[in-house]
Amino acid sequence: MQFASLDALRGACQDLPPGDMDAAAAVARRQDVLTKPQGSLGRLETLVAWLARWQGRDMPRLERVKVVVFAGSHGVTAQGVSAFPAEVTTQMVANFAAGGAAINQLARAAGAELDVVALDIDRPTADFTLAPAMTEMEFLEAVARGYAVVEPGLDLICLGEMGIGNTTAAAALAAALFGGVEQWVGRGTGVDDAGLARKAAAIEVALKLHGDLLADPLSAASTVGGRELAAILGATLAARHHGVPVLLDGFVCTAAVAPLFRLHAHGLEHAVAAHMSAESGHRGLLSSMNLSPLLDLHMRLGEASGACLAVNLLRSALACHTGMASLEEAGVSDKG
Amino acid sequence: MQFASLDALRGACQDLPPGDMDAAAAVARRQDVLTKPQGSLGRLETLVAWLARWQGRDMPRLERVKVVVFAGSHGVTAQGVSAFPAEVTTQMVANFAAGGAAINQLARAAGAELDVVALDIDRPTADFTLAPAMTEMEFLEAVARGYAVVEPGLDLICLGEMGIGNTTAAAALAAALFGGVEQWVGRGTGVDDAGLARKAAAIEVALKLHGDLLADPLSAASTVGGRELAAILGATLAARHHGVPVLLDGFVCTAAVAPLFRLHAHGLEHAVAAHMSAESGHRGLLSSMNLSPLLDLHMRLGEASGACLAVNLLRSALACHTGMASLEEAGVSDKG
Repeated sequence: MQFASLDALRGACQDLPPGDMDAAAAVARRQDVLTKPQGSLGRLETLVAWLARWQGRDMPRLERVKVVVFAGSHGVTAQGVSAFPAEVTTQMVANFAAGGAAINQLARAAGAELDVVALDIDRPTADFTLAPAMTEMEFLEAVARGYAVVEPGLDLICLGEMGIGNTTAAAALAAALFGGVEQWVGRGTGVDDAGLARKAAAIEVALKLHGDLLADPLSAASTVGGRELAAILGATLAARHHGVPVLLDGFVCTAAVAPLFRLHAHGLEHAVAAHMSAESGHRGLLSSMNLSPLLDLHMRLGEASGACLAVNLLRSALACHTGMASLEEAGVSDKG
Repeated sequence: MQFASLDALRGACQDLPPGDMDAAAAVARRQDVLTKPQGSLGRLETLVAWLARWQGRDMPRLERVKVVVFAGSHGVTAQGVSAFPAEVTTQMVANFAAGGAAINQLARAAGAELDVVALDIDRPTADFTLAPAMTEMEFLEAVARGYAVVEPGLDLICLGEMGIGNTTAAAALAAALFGGVEQWVGRGTGVDDAGLARKAAAIEVALKLHGDLLADPLSAASTVGGRELAAILGATLAARHHGVPVLLDGFVCTAAVAPLFRLHAHGLEHAVAAHMSAESGHRGLLSSMNLSPLLDLHMRLGEASGACLAVNLLRSALACHTGMASLEEAGVSDKG
């Protein structure tokens, strides 16, 4: 879906289907009679109800699971904000294609199809310490690229990113949406103290330079975000419209969808935070967005790696739901 | 292995192989050159090194994964400590055999073989508010049953339990080993406030009654534990001797192996706590034993369900380790 303007996109972000509460309730009813104390599978139970709500099925399924990694290039790398040179973005996209990256292995282990979408990586966004990262048209095009990857009929989608410099963009976006600076600035791929200071300084400069452009969530995403962040936003919006549950990855991915949360209090109910990243701003960002991560394994790679890791948790949850006997079927006595 | 006495068992618990540190180091070296920032896969990296250390292989594997659920019956159920009637233990063992329980589904989803070992469930332990739960011989026999399930050559074992009343036994054992009472007493399968008070009272009575018998960790396990707890201890000890990494399940399972920790500061280094249970004493118990759980999904079922859920995390970690390209192979620039 190509949105004609930020206003058109904003409208789509505010007009959201609520999901199928009857399907979720049917799951909860079944969970309560299976051979276990009620509620004893914890989040495994609520995750199945969540799948049911957004798939619109009493008995959800996980047959078509897709992982999409969006890659983008960032002009702000000129400010020395990353530990790795900017060309690593292109090199890693080649590594994805060759099957050598972490996400290739993780997608296979999750039984998921992997799609890598490189977004004009030979044409970095503008350095946002000097000018808006993208024009409105560039931003909307990246949103549309993301929107297009979500086919109706998918059972689950895992979203992630790759882009040297993008934790700086994510931190700037978080700062624009939630205030503060330092708490969003982390080491990304492993920048040293001097680089960390340059990263914070770049964000401070951008916040002063762009002023009012940052007041609106989508305009902020266009001004200090990046193409891969915009695409994640578009994909998450499409997933809502198409009834596809979303697993979110780490700090950058969470920042990318934050505008959806700011534009609609329930705008991310079809998305689950798959993990809490070791990137220092992620804990606070998840908390600001009322998201409870499923995993906390000190990962900080991006690439949808955390999202993908959570797929098998969902498969296990679903296996319990579909395969377990009821107390009555098994002849097990109920609570005394 | 049938131990002739508590002293013989104690000796075996104190004479432990240290694992293969060279294999662990080889994993760490390989992780550092793969196409990702160093350390960015967090615990996925250290888990592979842990598998390598205990399997004694530079390149660990997860081909033969076994889940063992030990079931036991508890005389202390006479004190009204559980929400479910005691016959549920036998009914659930039948449910395991019929394939209708959560662990049947979870073991399949983990690609693991499931073994259920019912330990004299028609002959409950003595009510430990009146007498020691087991004789020394009964305890050693249950330890031996557990020891016997661990075949050398297994790549990983997940340990769990089922037994109405066994969170009371586990809490009593934790109280004997670490002091305090209230902090170990939780709702188990869902006991009400009155039941919770009876549970705490039963433990207080046992602590007073058995006095010196509780000073030694193994004697305590024999006096207030249960057969399934003893078997988990035996299996964990066997795993150490045979080079098999262990995934521990929830509160009861952790309490069951606590004597190994008390008898040897490094006695549980071959074991990973797969999850933190919602059973209220588990957090404190893990912390007392320096164990960091992999998952925290508010589960409180037992049956090795949490342990089993973590298997696919290990599979994913291993897939990254074995399948990823190095920076050099992929032509990706290193840190600037």
